[in-house]
Amino acid sequence: MQSEHPADDVAAFKQAFRRHAAGVAGITARRPDGVPVGFTATSVASLAAVPPLVSFNMARIASAWPAVEATDHVVVHMLGARNRAVAERLAGPQDERFAGDHWAPGPLGLPLLNDVTAWMLGRIVERVHVADNAVIVVQVEDGELGAEDEPLLYHERAYRILGEHV
Amino acid sequence: MQSEHPADDVAAFKQAFRRHAAGVAGITARRPDGVPVGFTATSVASLAAVPPLVSFNMARIASAWPAVEATDHVVVHMLGARNRAVAERLAGPQDERFAGDHWAPGPLGLPLLNDVTAWMLGRIVERVHVADNAVIVVQVEDGELGAEDEPLLYHERAYRILGEHV
Repeated sequence: MQSEHPADDVAAFKQAFRRHAAGVAGITARRPDGVPVGFTATSVASLAAVPPLVSFNMARIASAWPAVEATDHVVVHMLGARNRAVAERLAGPQDERFAGDHWAPGPLGLPLLNDVTAWMLGRIVERVHVADNAVIVVQVEDGELGAEDEPLLYHERAYRILGEHV
Repeated sequence: MQSEHPADDVAAFKQAFRRHAAGVAGITARRPDGVPVGFTATSVASLAAVPPLVSFNMARIASAWPAVEATDHVVVHMLGARNRAVAERLAGPQDERFAGDHWAPGPLGLPLLNDVTAWMLGRIVERVHVADNAVIVVQVEDGELGAEDEPLLYHERAYRILGEHV
């Protein structure tokens, strides 16, 4: 990936990540004017259990970035197979992401997605800018488990569930 | 997760992450004295494609932390189903992680794991300390794709491959 053709480097990087599969989460917040924002994330990871810390990544050109930059709190929702439509909706056109009854205002007025397998309300403790992107770290302050389900996975632009043990 | 019993909060947090599945990567580095270190990570995520940036999380009590703290470069390996034994080895006893012929010195003398689906050599551009942990961001400078394979996944302390589309 040190070629003389940067476009080739980008293609190689994307190809490498096609070898990786990821769990799918839905992240929501509120703009200062109260409008809900959200997006589908494949970067959610546990950073620590004590204190409970979660990280995720986003582009600072994302439609939800101004809200995440301005707010103290977000909600990270773990998505199961039954939440596939919600995952697609939060990855679709910005003005349609909260058009529907798939969410309701929750603690602190934050948008809570319905019927997820777990949600965690977190206070943002780090916003690390790297180039045009940000790594966000939140400390979990509230949360709830929903009914169990197969975790939703994303790979090669497709949603999947877990398969065989190896 | 705001109970009066912190142990309950930790249990709830861990339970929430049991609803999440993750891709598996192997991360390697060298101590200043040249000794290879490495660990299995389920937190590897793409941060950007331009420039190519990757993030991962680790505890600063991890055996590999002093090396990651001291070095400029690490190698992130995407693991496939055929690499399951390597994933287990890099999650096992520290002094056995590089006992064997499953790796060889690569660029900059960094340990390269054999027969992975992709590897990316990255220069560390951020080490963000949060409590006793760190978020590491690397900018990819070199890399190579290996033979294709099913991505290796981790869920509920077990290794899995992808299943059905949903």
